[in-house]
Amino acid sequence: MAAIRRTVFFVSDGTGLTAEALGHSLLSQFEAVEFAQIRIPFLDSIAKAHAAVARINGQSESDGMRSIVFTTLVDQDLADIVHQADAYCLSYFDTFLAPLEAELGVKSSHTVGRSHGSADSSEYKRRIEAINYTLAHDDGITDHDLEQADVILVAVSRCGKTPTSLYLAMQFGLKAANFPLIPEDFERGRLPGTLERQRGKLFGLTIQPERLHSIREERRPGSNYASLANCRQEVAEAEKMMRREGIRWLDSSTKSIEEISTTVLQELHLR
Amino acid sequence: MAAIRRTVFFVSDGTGLTAEALGHSLLSQFEAVEFAQIRIPFLDSIAKAHAAVARINGQSESDGMRSIVFTTLVDQDLADIVHQADAYCLSYFDTFLAPLEAELGVKSSHTVGRSHGSADSSEYKRRIEAINYTLAHDDGITDHDLEQADVILVAVSRCGKTPTSLYLAMQFGLKAANFPLIPEDFERGRLPGTLERQRGKLFGLTIQPERLHSIREERRPGSNYASLANCRQEVAEAEKMMRREGIRWLDSSTKSIEEISTTVLQELHLR
Repeated sequence: MAAIRRTVFFVSDGTGLTAEALGHSLLSQFEAVEFAQIRIPFLDSIAKAHAAVARINGQSESDGMRSIVFTTLVDQDLADIVHQADAYCLSYFDTFLAPLEAELGVKSSHTVGRSHGSADSSEYKRRIEAINYTLAHDDGITDHDLEQADVILVAVSRCGKTPTSLYLAMQFGLKAANFPLIPEDFERGRLPGTLERQRGKLFGLTIQPERLHSIREERRPGSNYASLANCRQEVAEAEKMMRREGIRWLDSSTKSIEEISTTVLQELHLR
Repeated sequence: MAAIRRTVFFVSDGTGLTAEALGHSLLSQFEAVEFAQIRIPFLDSIAKAHAAVARINGQSESDGMRSIVFTTLVDQDLADIVHQADAYCLSYFDTFLAPLEAELGVKSSHTVGRSHGSADSSEYKRRIEAINYTLAHDDGITDHDLEQADVILVAVSRCGKTPTSLYLAMQFGLKAANFPLIPEDFERGRLPGTLERQRGKLFGLTIQPERLHSIREERRPGSNYASLANCRQEVAEAEKMMRREGIRWLDSSTKSIEEISTTVLQELHLR
């Protein structure tokens, strides 16, 4: 059990997701400390700034120790209010904008809420289209419009194709189809024709057979599909096929969908 | 057209997604500058650090202006190498870890790649389960296991239910079902019974009729479904129903899925 407990606030004029992501990566470096984490998003008025200060001060008082506050507040007046809280405040914008202004030789615009793009922007529309495409091309549902895909994941069932495809669409706006590799593919000894024509977009996932076995057991306990012997054989066949066809692939066993997706981008030179 | 162009590198020992997200929010404050952005993920060896330096230096030379480099490198040896590049380097960890160590009174562990959680962690499994649940409960496919949902989005067709549900699952590990509001619901004058029993989990989306019209026209041009008159009527009926039933809701017209999702969390007190 962690001996030290601290409360951390992420205060933002937008969603606070960026503040929280950076905060997490910093806080994860302190294993000896247990952090209670509170996000205060959409802080966009003087009244909300004062309410946040009251909440932070109340927390500091009940903890008997000052809270830690990460802020991404573009509006200087709001930032000034929040930074008066009885807390240890770290401001991303105060810290980085001034040096960036000096380096770039221009002033920053101090515009609120630009990081996720507006819902009207073409980039945002592309993301939504990519999500729709990816849902329509999950698990080999169809090979219609497959030539529009940016990437096509292939793997035996339960290697993480679906969550990875959705992440690629949602985060990067990529049209990500995915196809299961099934015993018929292995018996035929080559890729389905529709996939062969899109060879440059293929990326394979594989997995440790023991892990696949435990994942499949949760879904279909005691089945041949889930048996360790079958998992071993399917994985071996899939890896043999990917090696023979020159498909780039990685072992997803211990990787998060963020890590898998980033690797796919890198290997297929997608950005 | 932007008069100033600069190249920005995001260098990380992990995916670099956090470095990039924070970098975007900072760079979006400089509208007068056009940034070419390059992510260098998984930098986890001395050799890769030197390769990154060579790449950065090459870019600085061909640009005729030094590159800007954001780093989230936990390993100090690797960070030291990268920071020798001919570039303007900003390090999140150098900047924030030392002050945090002082505030917390403990040293940071300098452990690489902890921010997305391991694929074995219970939090990660919860995310994957949430994605599967959400896909199985998209667009009212089934009301089986609906009592397991953390949130149920309701809206007329094409308001953003599906992408928002997926984002809630992927980012926050929430089981997010969604149901379309259809003319039959409006005629009946009350919510479907299955939804009434989950009233506390309901959150509504609405949209400006003009925007809905243009979105639907892209899918079914010239149809009654897409006509402005029909969009106006459906939106009015849906808002009337949500008001009458006391369902919290927001207008998704100009909101990103991140903004909608954050609002849903806040309104339903989900974190």
